[in-house]
Amino acid sequence: LSNKTNDEIVPTLLTQHLKVKPVTMLTASRSPGYVASPHSKLQSMIWSNPIRNVFITKKPGTTTTREAMVKFITHLHDSYPEINVIVQPPVISEISNDFKTFPEQNPNHPHVLFTGENEDIVTKTDLMVTLGGDGTILHAVSMFHDMQVPPVLAFSLGTLGFLLPFDFSEHEVVFNQVMNSRAKCLHRTRLECFIVRKNDPKKISKLVSVHAMNDIFLHRGNAPYLAYLDVFIDGEYLTRTTADGIALATPTGSTAYSLSAGGSIVSPLVPSILLTPICPRSLSFRPLILPHSSHVKIRISTKSTYNLENNKINLSIDGRPYDSLDVGDEIHVINETGTIYLNGSELPPEYNSPDLFKRKSKIKYSGIYCVAKTENDWSLGINELLGFNSSFRFKPAKTKNDKPSNCSFEE
Amino acid sequence: LSNKTNDEIVPTLLTQHLKVKPVTMLTASRSPGYVASPHSKLQSMIWSNPIRNVFITKKPGTTTTREAMVKFITHLHDSYPEINVIVQPPVISEISNDFKTFPEQNPNHPHVLFTGENEDIVTKTDLMVTLGGDGTILHAVSMFHDMQVPPVLAFSLGTLGFLLPFDFSEHEVVFNQVMNSRAKCLHRTRLECFIVRKNDPKKISKLVSVHAMNDIFLHRGNAPYLAYLDVFIDGEYLTRTTADGIALATPTGSTAYSLSAGGSIVSPLVPSILLTPICPRSLSFRPLILPHSSHVKIRISTKSTYNLENNKINLSIDGRPYDSLDVGDEIHVINETGTIYLNGSELPPEYNSPDLFKRKSKIKYSGIYCVAKTENDWSLGINELLGFNSSFRFKPAKTKNDKPSNCSFEE
Amino acid sequence: LSNKTNDEIVPTLLTQHLKVKPVTMLTASRSPGYVASPHSKLQSMIWSNPIRNVFITKKPGTTTTREAMVKFITHLHDSYPEINVIVQPPVISEISNDFKTFPEQNPNHPHVLFTGENEDIVTKTDLMVTLGGDGTILHAVSMFHDMQVPPVLAFSLGTLGFLLPFDFSEHEVVFNQVMNSRAKCLHRTRLECFIVRKNDPKKISKLVSVHAMNDIFLHRGNAPYLAYLDVFIDGEYLTRTTADGIALATPTGSTAYSLSAGGSIVSPLVPSILLTPICPRSLSFRPLILPHSSHVKIRISTKSTYNLENNKINLSIDGRPYDSLDVGDEIHVINETGTIYLNGSELPPEYNSPDLFKRKSKIKYSGIYCVAKTENDWSLGINELLGFNSSFRFKPAKTKNDKPSNCSFEE
Amino acid sequence: LSNKTNDEIVPTLLTQHLKVKPVTMLTASRSPGYVASPHSKLQSMIWSNPIRNVFITKKPGTTTTREAMVKFITHLHDSYPEINVIVQPPVISEISNDFKTFPEQNPNHPHVLFTGENEDIVTKTDLMVTLGGDGTILHAVSMFHDMQVPPVLAFSLGTLGFLLPFDFSEHEVVFNQVMNSRAKCLHRTRLECFIVRKNDPKKISKLVSVHAMNDIFLHRGNAPYLAYLDVFIDGEYLTRTTADGIALATPTGSTAYSLSAGGSIVSPLVPSILLTPICPRSLSFRPLILPHSSHVKIRISTKSTYNLENNKINLSIDGRPYDSLDVGDEIHVINETGTIYLNGSELPPEYNSPDLFKRKSKIKYSGIYCVAKTENDWSLGINELLGFNSSFRFKPAKTKNDKPSNCSFEE
Ligand SMILES: NC(=O)C1=CN([C@@H]2O[C@H](COP(=O)(O)OP(=O)(O)OC[C@H]3O[C@@H](n4cnc5c(N)ncnc54)[C@H](O)[C@@H]3O)[C@@H](O)[C@H]2O)C=CC1
Ligand SMILES: NC(=O)C1=CN([C@@H]2O[C@H](COP(=O)(O)OP(=O)(O)OC[C@H]3O[C@@H](n4cnc5c(N)ncnc54)[C@H](O)[C@@H]3O)[C@@H](O)[C@H]2O)C=CC1
Ligand SMILES: NC(=O)C1=CN([C@@H]2O[C@H](COP(=O)(O)OP(=O)(O)OC[C@H]3O[C@@H](n4cnc5c(N)ncnc54)[C@H](O)[C@@H]3O)[C@@H](O)[C@H]2O)C=CC1
Ligand SMILES: NC(=O)C1=CN([C@@H]2O[C@H](COP(=O)(O)OP(=O)(O)OC[C@H]3O[C@@H](n4cnc5c(N)ncnc54)[C@H](O)[C@@H]3O)[C@@H](O)[C@H]2O)C=CC1
Repeated sequence: LSNKTNDEIVPTLLTQHLKVKPVTMLTASRSPGYVASPHSKLQSMIWSNPIRNVFITKKPGTTTTREAMVKFITHLHDSYPEINVIVQPPVISEISNDFKTFPEQNPNHPHVLFTGENEDIVTKTDLMVTLGGDGTILHAVSMFHDMQVPPVLAFSLGTLGFLLPFDFSEHEVVFNQVMNSRAKCLHRTRLECFIVRKNDPKKISKLVSVHAMNDIFLHRGNAPYLAYLDVFIDGEYLTRTTADGIALATPTGSTAYSLSAGGSIVSPLVPSILLTPICPRSLSFRPLILPHSSHVKIRISTKSTYNLENNKINLSIDGRPYDSLDVGDEIHVINETGTIYLNGSELPPEYNSPDLFKRKSKIKYSGIYCVAKTENDWSLGINELLGFNSSFRFKPAKTKNDKPSNCSFEE
Repeated sequence: LSNKTNDEIVPTLLTQHLKVKPVTMLTASRSPGYVASPHSKLQSMIWSNPIRNVFITKKPGTTTTREAMVKFITHLHDSYPEINVIVQPPVISEISNDFKTFPEQNPNHPHVLFTGENEDIVTKTDLMVTLGGDGTILHAVSMFHDMQVPPVLAFSLGTLGFLLPFDFSEHEVVFNQVMNSRAKCLHRTRLECFIVRKNDPKKISKLVSVHAMNDIFLHRGNAPYLAYLDVFIDGEYLTRTTADGIALATPTGSTAYSLSAGGSIVSPLVPSILLTPICPRSLSFRPLILPHSSHVKIRISTKSTYNLENNKINLSIDGRPYDSLDVGDEIHVINETGTIYLNGSELPPEYNSPDLFKRKSKIKYSGIYCVAKTENDWSLGINELLGFNSSFRFKPAKTKNDKPSNCSFEE
Repeated sequence: LSNKTNDEIVPTLLTQHLKVKPVTMLTASRSPGYVASPHSKLQSMIWSNPIRNVFITKKPGTTTTREAMVKFITHLHDSYPEINVIVQPPVISEISNDFKTFPEQNPNHPHVLFTGENEDIVTKTDLMVTLGGDGTILHAVSMFHDMQVPPVLAFSLGTLGFLLPFDFSEHEVVFNQVMNSRAKCLHRTRLECFIVRKNDPKKISKLVSVHAMNDIFLHRGNAPYLAYLDVFIDGEYLTRTTADGIALATPTGSTAYSLSAGGSIVSPLVPSILLTPICPRSLSFRPLILPHSSHVKIRISTKSTYNLENNKINLSIDGRPYDSLDVGDEIHVINETGTIYLNGSELPPEYNSPDLFKRKSKIKYSGIYCVAKTENDWSLGINELLGFNSSFRFKPAKTKNDKPSNCSFEE
Repeated sequence: LSNKTNDEIVPTLLTQHLKVKPVTMLTASRSPGYVASPHSKLQSMIWSNPIRNVFITKKPGTTTTREAMVKFITHLHDSYPEINVIVQPPVISEISNDFKTFPEQNPNHPHVLFTGENEDIVTKTDLMVTLGGDGTILHAVSMFHDMQVPPVLAFSLGTLGFLLPFDFSEHEVVFNQVMNSRAKCLHRTRLECFIVRKNDPKKISKLVSVHAMNDIFLHRGNAPYLAYLDVFIDGEYLTRTTADGIALATPTGSTAYSLSAGGSIVSPLVPSILLTPICPRSLSFRPLILPHSSHVKIRISTKSTYNLENNKINLSIDGRPYDSLDVGDEIHVINETGTIYLNGSELPPEYNSPDLFKRKSKIKYSGIYCVAKTENDWSLGINELLGFNSSFRFKPAKTKNDKPSNCSFEE
């Protein structure tokens, strides 16, 4: 099923209890409104039109998430017959034999799952549900580029994540709150990255844009030489760094790679772009927190004596290898609602594509709205997950089994 | 003159060329409008009513600044006879013998300077001019607490400053631009600090508020014991730190003490509050960048065995010792336009003083508008002043005299 | 008793069960030999002459340590009647009523405690036992300056310490091992600090030397200005630092103040001197690890405009305020067996005091030999006490009570 | 010539002025004695038998180094006819046409160069001369593994290096000092790395040993997953790190990769091994300075869910890619004179190869003796080359051209 092209997906009865239909049949996605309140860091998510299409993704290949997915779909079908469940084709193959009964409120009809190409799924999704860890959320959100991201309801199974998911045991209660506009969301910004190739005559045609929830980074990877990177802010030269690489992160990503490289922890509510060097050959490169409206350009530079062919630098988006860049190539990073036409920008006029701006105007709510547990999720997260400011343990361990957390080592 | 109380200042002819008048004679201060532009990080400063009262401060006691002040006043009197110059009483004593001629456009009248108590000066100032370094600006701005700060036009004399002053040689040109609404300003936020004493029955009566342009910090000072500080964000406990102290900084202050303690460099345009520990006894305390709307409470805690009397912790505002705190005392820090009545706050209702809010509503433009040289001042500053990301110097020095900057040592 | 001068201490029966005698009655201290082994990081402590005089110190004022002390003394008197127990006068006052029985092996004689002036105690001590935390050890060791430190057997009571004490519950077994030359020791180096006053005509007369187990630091303390310190290594100018201060630490002290200021963790077995700046106004001051044989000179410098009187800098030794220094004053720091007459040293010849060298030659084993639990104490310590390299806790807490260690906060 | 095997190198007249002979003709290398002095950080290099065989290496492919090499060889042949000059085959091809005259003291004979396989060159070299930067020295020294390294005399050409070379303009004077036993050397230690494969039945046969002057590091390279590394010290488990990688460095290497990753600067005279994590996913991993005698074992670990095939980790020695490791593989790192059979080691007995120890016993002087300029080279280096503790530049630039060093950017 997974390799079928979209128009091949026709309603099919896979088993006695499971039928698949093309996602293209569904009505277009609709989004909730988000209402801020003066006393809250979160925004209320209000559905003036009820949720109809729920897209569920999961971490591939573990029994726990597969079972959770079946449980969650069954719950939706049993309790919310009006809701259409969307999954990706590989998931259907994985779970097709797991439905042994008919939906409760619809005893004579099989379970129905909608599926299709990613590019169709994204146009139909009202709400996205993820089952897995941080990687699952990052991956699911990455499907929605150049368009509005539906609200994200994330569940973890066994392991916690820093993107602050709910425990799966709460799925019934939480989904009910979301349905009834009683859920609150934390807003997270995204970054957008354009690659401009040095040797591209018609630059505009190749203007590729990718979106990052965590970070965009350049790294020397396996290369035995250092990366030489020229950094420009709003069209003005800032510095040249000789380093393993450089990370541009959202506040969300401040606890990911940027943290490992020595960056500060930034609340998701601080509108900003983090510029954190990775192992720079300088004593005086301190991580920078730039305005949200910044246009950051990084150009692959070189020491003249280097062989140009060898000087490839890897670009990764949210930790996934994306492309490799040559000397003279550039990345341009802005926040998702930003524009690269700031005062003083050196970007040539041919980039001033009308498409670029038409697209932007379509998006009402930029960034990512994540259903949140409490006002305090973030503080709890840095305390409980990152072990922030652990005090030195000058109290003796009570019992032999009361080991520090890093003693989890077993041969 | 400096010790005279306000009502004693009567118009006095100090020398043939200099007359002093009470500042109270002047009309009340008026402020410009600030207009943002989509393509600029700066805001245009527009005077719908022309500037009349200019308050000039200077670093005390150096010949260079004294001479510059006389030159600047002379220029104003010569070229802008409609402008009233305000100075503090000690300045008058310092410069009274330095006026040897009459103003050009007013050849038969002596130079006139207005003076008085600080609390009167602040109500009359349309524009503030500082002559000196960062400390001079910090000190001048600190006079304006609980009220709108007039725009700041800063000049340096010989030494540069990170608050990015103009060189004094440009004073005529720059002042003319300011007068003619052709100057642009960088907006900097301020923090506000309330002290709440543990053993104060009527807490509200003692609610003191001070404003910081750089930072508010608690430090053990000379004490041979560590500070134990409990940190709460928006009323929720975050962490207890055992440390030399803790700094809460504005983005402006990110390059001051916070930097020395290991904090990131934050652009003044990122609305945020920096929480940077000072020498904490923890491997895992990383500097935090909190939302601008945060309410940070810090309570002096203690190890039970300590003698309470000895456990004083020093509070400093913009580097000046302000007060010392005892175990159980608290500071509450918010941004100047913020409120401490956020969701979940533990602050008792009696703090909810109506005065507090009446004051706030008076301020139209909070923070500090500093006349800026270029869009790029900040990047230039971190490069040129802080030596940001200096690359290793693997080129030989051209001449013997081409020494690295830290070799400025002389016996 | 505590205020009596030495010659006033005459044998006195304090209670029916406790007699006090002057420490001066005892024979001079003798030290063990220390034998290294190729396969061990520790050294065997061999007593060719059996231990006779045991000096016991404790953390002042807590019931737990008082009770432990009485228990320990009773055990020694019961099991090792040949051993003389030495305590300081205040301890006698504290515990005098706690002996309710006669020693087991000497049923008709009271318990005997030896006491006297510190300067007499140190000349009689064969072995030092401490009951308390790191501070107790630091303080006890500091009594032995300019002379050999007796081996240290440290016990903790309830709280752990980074100087790696034994748990008090093991005191009988461990003391027996020490007595029978079956204990092993970790060797820790000490630093020595000389103060040289600028305005001291006969410098040699005032040459004060103090010894540090952890660190020697200079700090601005309460001063609202920064410290300007010129650093010289082996007589050559290294750098001028503008900072809160500077710490010179032993490897033992690498986990004390130096760690909080950002220093690396250095094994006690690495012969070296750590130079760690405290909140320096520089992006590029990295902690330095200098050779053990280094001669570090730090001179209090000044910006010319400062008022000299105000520019006092505090000197602390192992965390205790020691003295305050003026502009032009210097400290000279070397390892305890080092000499300040290295090549190129600028120290004037008059310091070349014969006394200095005579003293040195007396010391056979420099530094501090601490009875150790296992080869691995240090690694265990950084893991268990400092929470070194705690991994992020992405496993859910098993029970409600399984809180992270920094949630120990209680109102 | 470069591809010829050793026995093919026969005396050949390449040009009228240049003859090549096989290095195997030369007598075996002999080494100087090194004499320490109490007042010096350097050691005098004493040649009881005069230097005969000088091996000269250079950075490949630049005109400047080629010309310098010819100049240096010509000087040796002109002034020291008894000295045999050794070069590698590719160098001969490069410079063969550059000799236009006969040697001064030997006017009728061509210049003679000795060459051959690296494994023969290393057995004949009395003194090694390098022309180029740090990389040239690292590479030259790496030829000498498992044997004594000849003294290194390094010259730089235009660019400075942190391994503190002489300027080439001084080559005549300096070489003369070396010849006449008037030169002093800085001693630098090396690390040795053994790779042990998990799935190697006869582990001993594959026991590979490589030597590092700077560092040995493991890195995830291009992999999109993190490295999981278990670290053991002296056979005891220390910690598991999840990171980009880990660096084990000599004090010499403390200013190379370790510095970029946040490590302290360690004097080459501090006998120690640095363990510095590279971008670890932990807030509390602080660089460690371990005893010189440590045996550090690192095992590639894995999260159980990972695909083993993908989990390759790259090993680099002095920055050169060396090998890639699989899950379960280990590296064992010790100092060059150390042994991996420390107390508690888990290394199986079959590693206890007699060869291993036979080799060790051959080396009289381990590590690398580098001819040094002054006692103070190291302090000068961190100041002048690394820009250590640069103070903030609050003095205005004198002229427009007086730009900070990081403004070297040109489009
Ligand atoms: N040395 C490092 O710390 C590196 C970190 N990364 C980070 O990994 C991210 C991708 O994550 P995965 O797809 O899960 O890859 P992954 O499976 O390699 O996991 C990376 C780890 O980072 C955690 N993580 C992800 N986003 C986070 C966030 N915003 N805050 C705190 N922790 C977070 C994950 O839970 C996981 O433990 C990238 O965006 C990048 O920031 C990537 C490479 C190296
Ligand atoms: N160890 C440290 O770095 C310490 C720093 N400070 C800082 O000093 C500030 C007060 O400054 P002054 O009255 O001039 O005292 P000061 O005369 O003691 O000078 C402190 C230094 O900081 C510089 N400075 C001030 N504000 C700055 C900023 N926003 N960015 C970059 N550099 C800045 C000044 O130019 C001066 O070089 C405080 O707000 C505090 O942040 C205060 C105590 C210790
Ligand atoms: N901000 C900071 O971290 C400061 C640290 N200190 C350190 O405190 C030391 C004096 O200790 P105390 O008399 O116990 O004073 P204290 O009672 O103020 O305790 C300081 C803390 O440091 C711990 N400590 C002491 N020596 C240590 C070591 N070598 N390794 C790890 N932890 C250690 C103690 O257990 C205690 O938790 C000084 O030598 C200095 O290094 C002193 C002032 C400030
Ligand atoms: N992000 C980083 O800082 C990285 C650093 N390296 C370092 O590069 C070294 C290899 O150097 P090259 O062969 O010259 O490669 P390279 O040509 O890539 O140069 C690396 C840079 O490090 C400098 N360098 C080398 N050894 C040094 C030392 N001991 N102290 C100070 N600077 C030093 C070199 O002069 C050069 O500027 C490796 O041993 C490793 O330590 C390697 C990879 C990444």
